[in-house]
Amino acid sequence: MPPFGYEGVKAPPSPALFPTLKSSFTRNGAKASRHVNIRHTSTKPKVLVALYPDPKSGYPPNYARKDIPKIESYPDGQTVPSPKEIDFVPGELLGCVSGELGLRKFLEANGYELVVTSDKDGKDCEMDEHLPEAEVVISQPFYLYYLTRQRIDKAPNLKMAITAGIGSDHVDLDAAMEHKVDVTEVTFSNSISVAEHAVMMILALVRNYIPSHLAIIAGDWAISDCVSRAYDVEGMHIGTVAAGRIGLAVLRRMHPFGCKLHYCDRHRLSAKVEQELDLVYHQSPQVFVAICHSFFACVHVAHVFRIWFQIVTLSPSTALCIQRPSIFLMRS
Amino acid sequence: MPPFGYEGVKAPPSPALFPTLKSSFTRNGAKASRHVNIRHTSTKPKVLVALYPDPKSGYPPNYARKDIPKIESYPDGQTVPSPKEIDFVPGELLGCVSGELGLRKFLEANGYELVVTSDKDGKDCEMDEHLPEAEVVISQPFYLYYLTRQRIDKAPNLKMAITAGIGSDHVDLDAAMEHKVDVTEVTFSNSISVAEHAVMMILALVRNYIPSHLAIIAGDWAISDCVSRAYDVEGMHIGTVAAGRIGLAVLRRMHPFGCKLHYCDRHRLSAKVEQELDLVYHQSPQVFVAICHSFFACVHVAHVFRIWFQIVTLSPSTALCIQRPSIFLMRS
Repeated sequence: MPPFGYEGVKAPPSPALFPTLKSSFTRNGAKASRHVNIRHTSTKPKVLVALYPDPKSGYPPNYARKDIPKIESYPDGQTVPSPKEIDFVPGELLGCVSGELGLRKFLEANGYELVVTSDKDGKDCEMDEHLPEAEVVISQPFYLYYLTRQRIDKAPNLKMAITAGIGSDHVDLDAAMEHKVDVTEVTFSNSISVAEHAVMMILALVRNYIPSHLAIIAGDWAISDCVSRAYDVEGMHIGTVAAGRIGLAVLRRMHPFGCKLHYCDRHRLSAKVEQELDLVYHQSPQVFVAICHSFFACVHVAHVFRIWFQIVTLSPSTALCIQRPSIFLMRS
Repeated sequence: MPPFGYEGVKAPPSPALFPTLKSSFTRNGAKASRHVNIRHTSTKPKVLVALYPDPKSGYPPNYARKDIPKIESYPDGQTVPSPKEIDFVPGELLGCVSGELGLRKFLEANGYELVVTSDKDGKDCEMDEHLPEAEVVISQPFYLYYLTRQRIDKAPNLKMAITAGIGSDHVDLDAAMEHKVDVTEVTFSNSISVAEHAVMMILALVRNYIPSHLAIIAGDWAISDCVSRAYDVEGMHIGTVAAGRIGLAVLRRMHPFGCKLHYCDRHRLSAKVEQELDLVYHQSPQVFVAICHSFFACVHVAHVFRIWFQIVTLSPSTALCIQRPSIFLMRS
């Protein structure tokens, strides 16, 4: 369970690519920014946080669940974050502007100034305005503030770039190293969430779920049209590109479905795990995608692909290990 | 993999309940009926089949997949149907009027007349018209022709009512027994398909998948609105009402998700299976639904519920074992 309540969503379209969508990111103008002290002459060290806007209906007064399961540790035994105390109720929406990641009380008690805003893109955005004084910059995988070399050059006080989640491909790592900026993430925090999402999408794609659901909503229950593209995953070839925290979690969850499971990775899993999950190992993605005889399996691969594409680009050395042309090698 | 290609869809709304939808069931009027010999004086024994209309775009010229996995046996070791030969390509859409369940060649070679129609409801429907001469009546779980006592009384030649799938609650079993009509189904044929569908729906409900998908389609990527109702299933209490072919398959598939699994059933599973899947057994659905502390778990239960409601009503003796009021016992 990710600590910040933003599990289960994919990256938003970039406003630069979809300028007409930009208004939706800032429509909650009244709550788009929350900071007590906006004097740029403040002597307090500044923590600058980019979070997505509050829900259109306002910050939730209550939730679908009264509580959330307490996760004690990650599947590999790694412990979950264990702060001494928190001043929010687990399950509350912390990833939006009003949620403030639950950090205000903690930071202000420790002498920091906290600036939270959803205005992170374009010329004269609020994040850029505060950047020169920031010691810490935080943003999220689904609402990234890109720390380019140009921005890092403009942030002489910057000591740390934190991802409230997983990933660092929004930070120019070379520039960060040159400026001695620590780049950190909350490793494993939403890996299981992504794995659940991948399994859900595999099932939904194979079973033609959403088109069938939409047909019902439209009052147009045409069974033939729904089922002519619907299959079971049982017996299909399903693969993951890489089998780290997310990939292995996907494979574990797909195992009881009676599929033929494949993976490729630079690091091979143990023989014990391969045997337990009856995995077929492929050395390269190219061979991997070409060998999948099932068209639908390849579509799944493409989906896991996209998720993994984000993961494998964590470091420049792995960024090019999977490239788009691989998709065209898939057998139809 | 069900043999007739109609896996993964739920029962259509009854035209009697939703009269405005009826047109969608018969819009393919031109292909609504296929039978070579419509003389009611035919001396050949008649097989009468109700199938849903062809796709709106016509019978598929090709499919998303070139082949489908070959399933050798069901999970309990039961063998799959093994006809000596078939004259269709596995994966072709057989459940609609043009698909004819792949039976025409076989039946005509054996001296039967085959009548296939989608006109199965209302006064003067084609199924009723042919019923008096039918020796065999076939329909499907998602496009049922109800063999009521009144209809069975009008079918003096009827020897067999076949469900092309699973279920017999559309047949008046007492009337069938009195008239010595065999009532048969293809046990297990789509149980795994339903289990996959249930797991998919559990994930989609917990993760708020469809509302989030629709938000993207509408060009309205409001992250807060999507995630404020999105959770992980990890650690949740998930239950099935009954743990037979479908229920046990759901529990097996949910096991690697790290949930707390519950079930209730009149027949308890073996200690070995309970231990393997770490199952909590409940004697009654009432206790079962009340003990689930998770609101979302209860929603899942309600979903599995509806699927199971169809299953448990297979025989009158079990029809009342689960009743709607149980849902209101669920803790929120």
